[in-house]
Amino acid sequence: MSINISTLLESRTACEKADAVDPLGNWRENFYLPQGLIYLDGNSLGPMPNKALEHLEQTIKNEWSEELINSWKNAGWWELSQTLGEMIAPVVGAASGQLIVSDSTSLNLYKTVHAALGMSHGRNVVVSEADSFPTDLYILEGIISSQQNIQRRLVGKDGDSLDELLDENVAVVTLSHVNYRSGELLPIEELVKKTHEAGALFVLDTCHSAGVLSVELDRWGVDFAVGCTYKYLNGGPGSPAYLYVAKRHQQSAVNPLSGWWGHARPFAFEKDFKAAEGILKFQTGTQPILSLRGLQAGLEIAKVADLNMVRKKSQCLTQLFLELVEKRYGNHGVTLHSPNDPEKRGSQVALHYANGFPVIQALIARKIIADFRAPGIMRFGFAPLYLRYTDVWDAAEALHEVLKTEEWREERFQQKHQVT
Amino acid sequence: MSINISTLLESRTACEKADAVDPLGNWRENFYLPQGLIYLDGNSLGPMPNKALEHLEQTIKNEWSEELINSWKNAGWWELSQTLGEMIAPVVGAASGQLIVSDSTSLNLYKTVHAALGMSHGRNVVVSEADSFPTDLYILEGIISSQQNIQRRLVGKDGDSLDELLDENVAVVTLSHVNYRSGELLPIEELVKKTHEAGALFVLDTCHSAGVLSVELDRWGVDFAVGCTYKYLNGGPGSPAYLYVAKRHQQSAVNPLSGWWGHARPFAFEKDFKAAEGILKFQTGTQPILSLRGLQAGLEIAKVADLNMVRKKSQCLTQLFLELVEKRYGNHGVTLHSPNDPEKRGSQVALHYANGFPVIQALIARKIIADFRAPGIMRFGFAPLYLRYTDVWDAAEALHEVLKTEEWREERFQQKHQVT
Repeated sequence: MSINISTLLESRTACEKADAVDPLGNWRENFYLPQGLIYLDGNSLGPMPNKALEHLEQTIKNEWSEELINSWKNAGWWELSQTLGEMIAPVVGAASGQLIVSDSTSLNLYKTVHAALGMSHGRNVVVSEADSFPTDLYILEGIISSQQNIQRRLVGKDGDSLDELLDENVAVVTLSHVNYRSGELLPIEELVKKTHEAGALFVLDTCHSAGVLSVELDRWGVDFAVGCTYKYLNGGPGSPAYLYVAKRHQQSAVNPLSGWWGHARPFAFEKDFKAAEGILKFQTGTQPILSLRGLQAGLEIAKVADLNMVRKKSQCLTQLFLELVEKRYGNHGVTLHSPNDPEKRGSQVALHYANGFPVIQALIARKIIADFRAPGIMRFGFAPLYLRYTDVWDAAEALHEVLKTEEWREERFQQKHQVT
Repeated sequence: MSINISTLLESRTACEKADAVDPLGNWRENFYLPQGLIYLDGNSLGPMPNKALEHLEQTIKNEWSEELINSWKNAGWWELSQTLGEMIAPVVGAASGQLIVSDSTSLNLYKTVHAALGMSHGRNVVVSEADSFPTDLYILEGIISSQQNIQRRLVGKDGDSLDELLDENVAVVTLSHVNYRSGELLPIEELVKKTHEAGALFVLDTCHSAGVLSVELDRWGVDFAVGCTYKYLNGGPGSPAYLYVAKRHQQSAVNPLSGWWGHARPFAFEKDFKAAEGILKFQTGTQPILSLRGLQAGLEIAKVADLNMVRKKSQCLTQLFLELVEKRYGNHGVTLHSPNDPEKRGSQVALHYANGFPVIQALIARKIIADFRAPGIMRFGFAPLYLRYTDVWDAAEALHEVLKTEEWREERFQQKHQVT
């Protein structure tokens, strides 16, 4: 596939032609997408894979209703966290036995950062970034306030770079692969190398990259990773998160949330905790099977998608959107909040506009779904498995109209931005 | 309802008559129960409420598929943990604003015990019980190993009673309302009083009592509680657990697992953690919506059931089973592992038999579902909302036949008891 963006900028017909020859064009049929809707919020909640309902009906009507308790064994419920982890493994460049699906991203961060700190031989500093997705910072606060003498340093606060913050006291560096607001993509391989040279461990948050970018946990030498499944992995609302622990750390890493699902022999009901071997020790309690089955449908798609092809199309989609906004339509005072270089950008475009909130409301009224993050950031997510070049064209055109006509000033789009 | 157990012992016809006049008889229609199956494992996984499939289909087909991201607001997803908590509140004797549904029982124990320890003014001992459900002990181990100087004492170990273990060093007492194996019911009100007199806080595990016994968290003065929703609350496989924090502690209690769902303004994406007011601070990360919707169906039933009536029927069912086994059929060497006094027994009967494991396998082959817990404990759960007196009769008769004929010796029932 070779897409010439300047050709696409000329007409919607050129976009239609690009859709017609798009090698990922058929993948759209794996999803249910509401009639007439252009969905640019797959970076927040992916659409439903058509198989999800089928899987859920099977689980409810057969496994739960008919087979009841036997399904823990016979329908593979007990191993489902592990089964789904193995399905995510190829998507994030991990060999077998290093991933499980369990709990939420926040909890998995708690487990992994806590474990990494426990392996730090007296080092007491955790480095994160000022512009992290906030829960990453909140979880660190929780760890710090319940342990003696742990300190936090933030990349980006007071302009500090990772290089400036790394020293012999740093135990753990935890960063996001793609920034949740700007879409900025960090060079993880290089950052892991620097972290290791400084004698620290690296915990990667892949929430905004898994399923849409090439992620190479093993090759990059990442020590621990966490990630979300309801964005580009299309697992359904609140589907459980995943957790990666590199094989070389599995023996020594300790899960602070030691529950019976992480026990070596959970059904022996022994009184003392003995951690399971390998990645299983990072489980804690019983997992929500119905939500896991929803996720399974999303992973059946993700695990067979060619991520190089996905990444290429993602770059074309974001670049086309940007250039349509900037070159074809004039930007109407909107500024780019994402990196301009497609190589440094994830699969979303963030535009800054002081009145971004009502603009997004006006787009939603036109059935173009994007979202808003304070202050003034309009986020447009581009998921290559179900979006078309014509969708990008139509979205950019709608944005242009909303801005040109100042439609966003209408009373109905002016409700207060909800932050609670 | 006045049930005369000795009358029922005489004939199956007497049991049929009792079923015909049972005021809870109709409640069975709320559940799907497989043809010909007698399900005595609702203490492990409750059967499917008929409404569960409907709720899930609505959530998948309309909320996820059609409305996508809007459903967080418009379909009440964001508040679902709280909404379901409010539905559980009357079932466990709690006024509004003290319960949420979130994560697993293990994680909720971590949060509540950790919070209680943080309020202990230098006291450093946690008292639990040797015969706890193991995850309660494992979670304590995790807390102890990551904090300085916390110690554990166990009721029942070396024969110690709670009275003997309470002193001025005890910060927290954490006990189960009903023992998972024996079904023994503890006098919680009295134990909470003793705990408070010793200056400590009480964390109650209601996994095996909620929905089948009268639980009075507020009236008993319980400080924190946790519980499971997939047993007698029929929430579906792995449905998330609940957590109770008494109003009087909500200001000072600190959730160690501080994630964005517990923030005062989650969508302001602030850099510093500021805990939400009230019970919401005990949330951590995104919750699995599909599994929560399954649970909703179970709670719609539980919240309107008359728990006094449920408790009375539960006592009749367990007593009938016991007396059938002991008096009508002769016990064939089986001994009672549950308290003999119905007032001291939850809604399950535990029988000890050295070859209990193959006996349970033989019962399952006869479509009577009960389970086994090492060593030698056969557990029979009696959920009054869907079980009949004739079910009890048939189960006792089948047990008698399996024991009398030594059917359990058959090769097919002899596979090894799985403990991993």
